[in-house]
Amino acid sequence: MKKREKEPEQKKEEKQNKKVTFNISKTNNFSEWFSEIIDKAELADLRYNVKGFVVFRPWAVRCMEKMYDLIEDELQNKGHEPAWFPAVIPEKNFKLEGEHIKGFSPQVFWVTHAADTILEEKMAMRPTSETAMYQMYALWIRGYRDLPFKMYQRAQVWRYETKATRPFIRSREFYWIESHDCFATEKEAEKQVLEDIDTTEKIMHQKLGVPFLALRRPEWDKFPGAVYTIGSDSLMPDGRVIQQPSTHYLGQGFAKVFNVKFKDKDGKEKYVYQTCYGPAVSRIFASVISMHGDDSGLVLPFIIAPIQVIIVPIFNNENKAIIFKKADQIEQELKNSGVRTKVDKREDRPGEKFFFWEMKGVPLRIELGEKEIKNKKLVLFLRDSKEKKIIDEKNFVEVIKKEGDLYDKRLKDKADKWFKDRIVDCKTKDDIKKALEEKKIAKCNFCSIGKEGEKCAEIVEKELLASVRGTRHDKKEIAKGKCPFCRKKANFVVYIAKSY
Amino acid sequence: MKKREKEPEQKKEEKQNKKVTFNISKTNNFSEWFSEIIDKAELADLRYNVKGFVVFRPWAVRCMEKMYDLIEDELQNKGHEPAWFPAVIPEKNFKLEGEHIKGFSPQVFWVTHAADTILEEKMAMRPTSETAMYQMYALWIRGYRDLPFKMYQRAQVWRYETKATRPFIRSREFYWIESHDCFATEKEAEKQVLEDIDTTEKIMHQKLGVPFLALRRPEWDKFPGAVYTIGSDSLMPDGRVIQQPSTHYLGQGFAKVFNVKFKDKDGKEKYVYQTCYGPAVSRIFASVISMHGDDSGLVLPFIIAPIQVIIVPIFNNENKAIIFKKADQIEQELKNSGVRTKVDKREDRPGEKFFFWEMKGVPLRIELGEKEIKNKKLVLFLRDSKEKKIIDEKNFVEVIKKEGDLYDKRLKDKADKWFKDRIVDCKTKDDIKKALEEKKIAKCNFCSIGKEGEKCAEIVEKELLASVRGTRHDKKEIAKGKCPFCRKKANFVVYIAKSY
Repeated sequence: MKKREKEPEQKKEEKQNKKVTFNISKTNNFSEWFSEIIDKAELADLRYNVKGFVVFRPWAVRCMEKMYDLIEDELQNKGHEPAWFPAVIPEKNFKLEGEHIKGFSPQVFWVTHAADTILEEKMAMRPTSETAMYQMYALWIRGYRDLPFKMYQRAQVWRYETKATRPFIRSREFYWIESHDCFATEKEAEKQVLEDIDTTEKIMHQKLGVPFLALRRPEWDKFPGAVYTIGSDSLMPDGRVIQQPSTHYLGQGFAKVFNVKFKDKDGKEKYVYQTCYGPAVSRIFASVISMHGDDSGLVLPFIIAPIQVIIVPIFNNENKAIIFKKADQIEQELKNSGVRTKVDKREDRPGEKFFFWEMKGVPLRIELGEKEIKNKKLVLFLRDSKEKKIIDEKNFVEVIKKEGDLYDKRLKDKADKWFKDRIVDCKTKDDIKKALEEKKIAKCNFCSIGKEGEKCAEIVEKELLASVRGTRHDKKEIAKGKCPFCRKKANFVVYIAKSY
Repeated sequence: MKKREKEPEQKKEEKQNKKVTFNISKTNNFSEWFSEIIDKAELADLRYNVKGFVVFRPWAVRCMEKMYDLIEDELQNKGHEPAWFPAVIPEKNFKLEGEHIKGFSPQVFWVTHAADTILEEKMAMRPTSETAMYQMYALWIRGYRDLPFKMYQRAQVWRYETKATRPFIRSREFYWIESHDCFATEKEAEKQVLEDIDTTEKIMHQKLGVPFLALRRPEWDKFPGAVYTIGSDSLMPDGRVIQQPSTHYLGQGFAKVFNVKFKDKDGKEKYVYQTCYGPAVSRIFASVISMHGDDSGLVLPFIIAPIQVIIVPIFNNENKAIIFKKADQIEQELKNSGVRTKVDKREDRPGEKFFFWEMKGVPLRIELGEKEIKNKKLVLFLRDSKEKKIIDEKNFVEVIKKEGDLYDKRLKDKADKWFKDRIVDCKTKDDIKKALEEKKIAKCNFCSIGKEGEKCAEIVEKELLASVRGTRHDKKEIAKGKCPFCRKKANFVVYIAKSY
């Protein structure tokens, strides 16, 4: 008897140790929430012993690999070809474009030695690849038939960030795609900028449910070497905007420096017009985590979830065999239809498994017990709404696929509503201050996003601890009245927010 | 009239400039063949201005991305999870395992500066990731339930190669997957080595048609830090073997250094047993190019070809519209079935297009003219055998898919036959010499692959300019007679070859 009494207690203790409930308020304590979910859901590990470098763990990598697929498919459909360029850039290339070197120099990691030998020329670990790619473009592009020339690479880049690093959001190594395109005319190049915004819209917003504003950055905040920069600003739950994929119109600046020319139909040699675009999957994932997650943990979009449907069998020693068999059948049918599925056969209690997979953000859960098998029904749990549905075993694969789509649509709709509510029309400095205090984005009139507006932007930075993010690029917004800072005539409608 | 006479001549000249025939003997001049096809088929560009670093161009990248998919699917099916580890390794980690540091030190690129700052500790650009990954394994692995622990990363590595570099074959940056697994027992770990060989067999041999020998390397040629190493040796047309995916049984050496322990069922802490495995997609692609290509250019396996079916419409100004429409229809139907297809609508002559796509290695070509449309037939050209088949328009998608499978099978069968003929049983040093002169692999008795055999191996290197590659690991081969070098009793059957 003693033995029997002891066993359950031991088990209980063991089970408690493994219990993974997640209960942190995302709204009230976003920073803790974000750190904790990264740890608990095993997304990344910060204990790697080089400062600012992060290890990305399987649950996150499997999501981000799917994000790479989504973005690369879209880019290829839009005529881009993939390439792989070296990770190192010789110092002389790097120094060719004045603004570019000025902007990136403080961030470069330098490779100076190989074994015991000092390299003849030191090499930058690429912080971005313009100066690696364009010398090759000069060799490849010959005539107008070669244009448009649209190429991208999936790559890591390395930046010696001096701001505080945070996994996924800002680290010294990050994972992105950079696309670099060349055109015969300015007009075509500027059309590409809009196409790039459309790519962000299609992937980040439509598929992953993260809304954003496409903002033309003020003169003082553009990409080093660009004519202008369009940043995609998303919002985090703590009310700070985060720059997501940005696209840059480079004009002919780099082309002239790297000698990227083509012979036009009229027989004349001309410089190309260039654009570049850089969606960072690791950072987009930060928005995905933050936008959709809740106090119980992650809520992953169905489209990228490593496991889309978790099957939790409710069994005892008597009916285990029959229930496992049915669970395996259901798993197989879903897998055959391309749905990523797993049966959780661990000996833990169903409730623990429920909490665990909710914390991991698995979109749909099937609960399967004796009753369900008898009634030819399945209990379907929806991670986002925490709603339970009884569905018929007949046609369940189709129903589940449809539920997956509906689930992603709900995530997007909820995010859209939240985002819309957080953009506030402001007239005065006080209005703006209040909006920022309420963790919102202020929309207001502004004197200028050209050089002459920089003084007012400095007031925003110093007094409001926020920044002028720019004007809508995808939509014309007309200013009326005065700039709330200098009281001069406002020529622009800008967005002001605290940022990462 | 004058105008009409001039035009065709201008066009002719233009067309000659664009003509891409490829006619180099792979058998007689492999080295030139390999360099030229890389250039003509736009696989890689060697003009990047850092020595030993190569730019990989879209046609190659699209093949290698598919190779990554094949390998990653196989690894995931075998229970491996993907992760991303930092590209840099702190010097102290790197120095922890004595043999490892000795082996890799001469090859390491060192990052010493960030911007103008000297780093407190210099960092190695990973030449391989044992010393990055295992410190994290020590944090993640706790108990026997965590084992087996099977993880891989898709990554580039950097090695300061002092041997001559060659694109795909050996360069200072290469693209691979490295898989690092931990087990509770030696037995399980050694079983993993066999599983890894099976992965190479499934992907490189069965799917890509590149045969190989799984050879246990002699003591003096194993991976730095390993107990033993199994290399997969493929053969190049010039008779030199090239090491393809190798797998290493690491024993507990790294585990002890990096403190990778687990609590076993008996409650005791034990060190794990480890294996690692590194398929390099860029190098496997070198074998794919070399094994299947012919004097007309590339012959790509159907399974990885960026374009599997090229449709060449045969048209004039009168029937262009109708033929293009039909070509588009066929393209769409193939695409809908997941076949990568393209219609070549350029104004060049059909013959030029034929040569071009043959050089690029596209497996199947559909020729489509007025006659074919009228007869509801398609002309199908097979790149490998250069055979033409007339197929019915009815069910053509299924027929083409089947032809794709048959085509890949033919490539494999041809390669297998070629490889088999190139392994020669040898008894004497003269036999071996003759085999090597005939660009073959010599199979012979040998005294020992332990330390005591190294003297004979030195004779092989000095006198025959070849190396002892090792013994079959997947199959027992029993030695009879004497070692042809020292005349002592032979204990092993080894393979001797010239190598890359």
